[in-house]
Amino acid sequence: MSRQGILFVISGPSGAGKGTVLREVFKRVEGLNFSVSATTRKIRAGEADGVNYFFISDDKFDKMIKNGEMLEFVGKYGNRYGTPKDAVKKLLDEHSDVVLEIETVGATNVKRLMPNDTVAIFIAPPSLTELWERLDHREAEENCDKELRFRTSIGEMMCAYGYDYLVVNDDLNECVDKVVHIIEAERNRIQFNKEIIQNIIDKG
Amino acid sequence: MSRQGILFVISGPSGAGKGTVLREVFKRVEGLNFSVSATTRKIRAGEADGVNYFFISDDKFDKMIKNGEMLEFVGKYGNRYGTPKDAVKKLLDEHSDVVLEIETVGATNVKRLMPNDTVAIFIAPPSLTELWERLDHREAEENCDKELRFRTSIGEMMCAYGYDYLVVNDDLNECVDKVVHIIEAERNRIQFNKEIIQNIIDKG
Repeated sequence: MSRQGILFVISGPSGAGKGTVLREVFKRVEGLNFSVSATTRKIRAGEADGVNYFFISDDKFDKMIKNGEMLEFVGKYGNRYGTPKDAVKKLLDEHSDVVLEIETVGATNVKRLMPNDTVAIFIAPPSLTELWERLDHREAEENCDKELRFRTSIGEMMCAYGYDYLVVNDDLNECVDKVVHIIEAERNRIQFNKEIIQNIIDKG
Repeated sequence: MSRQGILFVISGPSGAGKGTVLREVFKRVEGLNFSVSATTRKIRAGEADGVNYFFISDDKFDKMIKNGEMLEFVGKYGNRYGTPKDAVKKLLDEHSDVVLEIETVGATNVKRLMPNDTVAIFIAPPSLTELWERLDHREAEENCDKELRFRTSIGEMMCAYGYDYLVVNDDLNECVDKVVHIIEAERNRIQFNKEIIQNIIDKG
């Protein structure tokens, strides 16, 4: 008897602070496996291939799509981002919990493709003013000005309605607490623990 | 902008330890309101009217049902148990969170009556052997032998599939941790926070 593995999808607009939140969450929750996404964008200072992303060529990305190796993929600011399917599937088959940090549209697609495995958490900025500030302090994506990124983020906010949870990242510690509560709570959800009741009754 | 109030329904078979778990949960979670149930059973040593239950007569119970004042009610071992509707409704209208500790069938009914407000948590014993032991150490309900209560509990276990969460009460502290996680997590669920996204976009 093992609990079913859960696919936690963390998303939200650029500037919401997903990456920072997740780093803290991983320090506090046991048994989480981070699934590294693939991207065609250039590697930034401080990033490492296979850690932040698998940085791959357009040709390689095309091939992975063609071979059905991507669970989901989206284009953003001229670059592409995708989730390699095999690693996620292998971990879930082993009853392990997986964390994906992906784009808002990709997250909606994963939730639709795997509704019985997925818990989708939307990280939102406390206000658009604050989001604007954060985009200012953040290293710019290539080939994209701040105004466009801001307008894109507002559109991304509307994706939240398709998620399971909404966490506003105002105070980092409070935000991390909430995501930790969500992950630990979902591990007790009936849909992931159906065998346990029968097991208690059967074993006496 | 206020978050919607949530109705947390805690249930499970006799001997699962719901009462003990809830006492600890109330020490650790802020903003929870316990809704006191009504019953026709006799008051036990250590219990207080209006605290553990409203201890009312059969006539009064009949009247409350007739007047539509019960959210749900069930019979068990010749006694009746019910949830007065007004107190629950008033708290939810005020955007407060409410906790009901009720019988398994009643919990299923509340979940069906108010699916958009209710989070149902099932507390289960770790094994039937352990449940048998706990019934032994527990003050007996009037007019009901242990064997019948044990068989009833097994039947109640099967109700778990209709709940949102399953928490096995093996170690008390771990069980309390899990219920705390569930309550804090659900406060961030999209269905209870729909206004927040629109509010962030509107206010800028």
